[in-house]
Amino acid sequence: MFAGAQVSLYPMTDGFVDVILSSLNALDPWRNQLRIETDDISTLIVGPPEVLFPALRDLYASAAATGTHVVLRTTLSRGCPGEPDDPICQTGALANPEEPLASRQQSALAAIAATPEKGQVADVQFSLYVMGAGDHMAEIVGCIDFLKQSGTFDRSKNFCTRLTGDAGPVFATLQQAFCQFGPPNGHVTIDLTVSANSPSKR
Amino acid sequence: MFAGAQVSLYPMTDGFVDVILSSLNALDPWRNQLRIETDDISTLIVGPPEVLFPALRDLYASAAATGTHVVLRTTLSRGCPGEPDDPICQTGALANPEEPLASRQQSALAAIAATPEKGQVADVQFSLYVMGAGDHMAEIVGCIDFLKQSGTFDRSKNFCTRLTGDAGPVFATLQQAFCQFGPPNGHVTIDLTVSANSPSKR
Repeated sequence: MFAGAQVSLYPMTDGFVDVILSSLNALDPWRNQLRIETDDISTLIVGPPEVLFPALRDLYASAAATGTHVVLRTTLSRGCPGEPDDPICQTGALANPEEPLASRQQSALAAIAATPEKGQVADVQFSLYVMGAGDHMAEIVGCIDFLKQSGTFDRSKNFCTRLTGDAGPVFATLQQAFCQFGPPNGHVTIDLTVSANSPSKR
Repeated sequence: MFAGAQVSLYPMTDGFVDVILSSLNALDPWRNQLRIETDDISTLIVGPPEVLFPALRDLYASAAATGTHVVLRTTLSRGCPGEPDDPICQTGALANPEEPLASRQQSALAAIAATPEKGQVADVQFSLYVMGAGDHMAEIVGCIDFLKQSGTFDRSKNFCTRLTGDAGPVFATLQQAFCQFGPPNGHVTIDLTVSANSPSKR
């Protein structure tokens, strides 16, 4: 299995380079479990979902704590048939394919309840895509049903769903959406935007 | 059919609000063929692909012309089973399902060759997703083969493809990727990032 994310931070300030560089320190506790490569558009972070989502949460929370209007943008993927298996991605976090949807929804809700808060609000917009064989709309509808019970659900929009709340439970919700829905050997992606300190909200 | 995009502009400057508001004027010539709604995270633009892509190109080129480091981020979708049919999205731009892949690739290349330049460089990173029945990987591989011949191809990365060149042919390439691959009644999405004036490139 191959899993990871292409990640970008967009701080809406003249000092955007400083905000990006200082926020990257938040990845330090996770670096030994990830492979990280940067170019001029995004940073590739390869690793298992149970490391990837907390690392993204900490990166976001660090950038948000600067008080700047900043957006974290990520393309997450697991199981892409075009990518090679990678030992660093080995994970026990993906749902058992034999488990019914209702039971997977309950596990996902329990995981959110067990997640501590981070002290930073995260306004999220995301789309979950399930590719390949099987009934991809049944999995997406099951996931939306879980999201509505998650405590972080804000509203549905065209093409995407909005979440809001503390970054702890919000990123836990995203991790559960990514891991519990769609087959464990399937190709699942998330197109994710997380916004902090937007003046449009004030 | 329902088609559209959730669009955001991220200018990396203290004056980000002015860059966003002044760039939006570039949508004026297209507004009567689109439906546009804005909130604090993104702007929904609903309309057919042959209007949507030129409108996004002009919005991007206008923002890039300010000289600021600015990123346009878009989630594009057509044929999502969860969205209602909308007359404003009526289109003749989608490929004929009977047409073989090689012939669709040739039409796509001819459309790019016929597209004038805009005078702004566009550095693109995107992922194309084809959902539902059928061999989604065959369509994606066929699309990547087209991209490599497009004249705008830069390189493949994990989870995505990079294009670079003048915004005219680059957005034409994206439009062809969106319209010519995947079934016309299928669900196709693009996760798109376009970057201008990045200091990391200098």
